[in-house]
Amino acid sequence: MSQSEFEIIRRYFAESGLYFPRSGVELGIGDDGAVLQVPTDSLLTMSMDILVEGVHFPLFADPAQVAHRALAVNLSDLAAMAADPFCFTLGLVLPYANESWLAGFSEGLLELAEEFKCPLVGGDITRGPLSIAIQVHGLCKQERVLRRDGAKVGDLIYVTGTLGDGAIALASLGLDSHLGSSFVVDGEKQTDACKQHFHSAYYRPKPRIEFSNNCADFMSSGIDVSDGLVGDLGHVIKASGVGAVLNTKAFPYSNPAACCVSESNRQLAALFGGDDYELCVSVPALNRREFEAAAESVSTQITCIGEIVTGSAIRCLDSQEEEIDLSSGAYMHFRGAN
Amino acid sequence: MSQSEFEIIRRYFAESGLYFPRSGVELGIGDDGAVLQVPTDSLLTMSMDILVEGVHFPLFADPAQVAHRALAVNLSDLAAMAADPFCFTLGLVLPYANESWLAGFSEGLLELAEEFKCPLVGGDITRGPLSIAIQVHGLCKQERVLRRDGAKVGDLIYVTGTLGDGAIALASLGLDSHLGSSFVVDGEKQTDACKQHFHSAYYRPKPRIEFSNNCADFMSSGIDVSDGLVGDLGHVIKASGVGAVLNTKAFPYSNPAACCVSESNRQLAALFGGDDYELCVSVPALNRREFEAAAESVSTQITCIGEIVTGSAIRCLDSQEEEIDLSSGAYMHFRGAN
Repeated sequence: MSQSEFEIIRRYFAESGLYFPRSGVELGIGDDGAVLQVPTDSLLTMSMDILVEGVHFPLFADPAQVAHRALAVNLSDLAAMAADPFCFTLGLVLPYANESWLAGFSEGLLELAEEFKCPLVGGDITRGPLSIAIQVHGLCKQERVLRRDGAKVGDLIYVTGTLGDGAIALASLGLDSHLGSSFVVDGEKQTDACKQHFHSAYYRPKPRIEFSNNCADFMSSGIDVSDGLVGDLGHVIKASGVGAVLNTKAFPYSNPAACCVSESNRQLAALFGGDDYELCVSVPALNRREFEAAAESVSTQITCIGEIVTGSAIRCLDSQEEEIDLSSGAYMHFRGAN
Repeated sequence: MSQSEFEIIRRYFAESGLYFPRSGVELGIGDDGAVLQVPTDSLLTMSMDILVEGVHFPLFADPAQVAHRALAVNLSDLAAMAADPFCFTLGLVLPYANESWLAGFSEGLLELAEEFKCPLVGGDITRGPLSIAIQVHGLCKQERVLRRDGAKVGDLIYVTGTLGDGAIALASLGLDSHLGSSFVVDGEKQTDACKQHFHSAYYRPKPRIEFSNNCADFMSSGIDVSDGLVGDLGHVIKASGVGAVLNTKAFPYSNPAACCVSESNRQLAALFGGDDYELCVSVPALNRREFEAAAESVSTQITCIGEIVTGSAIRCLDSQEEEIDLSSGAYMHFRGAN
């Protein structure tokens, strides 16, 4: 096989079903640039996430699963802005042109692209160490953009879904979770169903698009939990000029997390693990009922885990209402480098 | 030094001057996504190019120069769409956090970002083998988008600037040009001024933004010459359903190219070399005068090098009006891989 860049683009991207018509996409793959017509009542929001082989996914991982994860974590950023997916671009760096890898990768993207009506409209493909850069583009209404700087004292703090599964999944898959050697999954208690749950949590996180679009009117700020609750909520309180109190006894965990991870490790995973891709949002107390009803109407589990308070720090209370020391810090990509 | 991703973003990108206010940019670095308000009379065009160390720029290259090139080649794609630069995003994969590298890189971006009023509004930074993904976003009017599929039989083919300098620059810098071992620069004839010219041609290509914005009304199609004239014009004729005739005796070369490269190698560089980042455009014969006047008014050298004809191939005539065999093909990124 000797395929040029253009042939790869044609076969695995332009003509694979990934570039499908979508209102507002005037021109997609095949020119010097894509051309979008943004509806006049909408703002365009966009976000880029890069996944590097050996850093963000294991060597020799299944290409369809890697593709799914790459697009899902990007769509999660659109959810965190309360935006509707519009289209995405792909920057693919590949060591060599491997037909079965490309076919699997393309298929993995297709599933989510179709589910969220978010076609591939352009990008670049080139030779080098495997990495995947995806930029997603979404549409949102001016008054509904879910920013980080809108949290107000007295607002309630909610999370969607469950916490900690992202980091526990890394341990379950035998990957480095950056939470230390005592962060382990109990192998004897881990059933096949648990393994399957964690595998999905890692490769198939659910972008909370439907939830955030449905609940946007009732939330004052939002972020997706990609670096752990302490790190991510930290961005919100800094941008909003407020403090927060978290009650760990309210933290929602999945059954597999409760089954095969100790309580202290579950808590560690929730606070510092990251990779959950759930949303952490603030909700004015007055909106509480409407918010909860709106979440229920799209069948999204939500849990109130704390409150926005005055100050500039996160205080975290354990099940005995005693304060936990959070100084160990959130996961840092460059921790220890240099 | 132990800097987190956030600290790097803050110091070298958010607060380095790269993220400056620009009409239409509602929210930039610092949330889950950037937010743009596209003017109601404009379309948004966007394009992504990735540069990988050791593939698209040499190992240990000057970070400011690499940054300049990375943004310039992306802006060239906006020129090829006749779009006005709006903003850009950056996906930076870095082996480790090196302060002086980051400072130089940020500075290299700043020069062009300011020149083209194109702020950095978001992106991602992560650990891995050095690569730079940039996505540029531009604004254009509906009727002025410069597409590849608008060339018509009888249109004249023009290029901006000079041809071949991109590939000759690779040879001058001692880098692989993919044009074979007989593609060389005559070391004895190459003056310091020649070297400086080729160095600039490689690291500081000039995005033809002003030209294409000023001449958009008079052109029927356009593309930037990044893969060599045969490859790039090939995309235009394929998209437009036409053929083309090129006259090599009309090809414009720089003085340094004429000074230290043989005629046959100059021609090889122009046809198959790439990396020129000049524009190749088609102009309806009726627009010729207005087009030439519009180009002159922004001091852009343009040269008529051929004509759009019926058919589906590019025919290329040498200075004796004899046909040149073009079957050796354009540079392929994956040539020989696998």
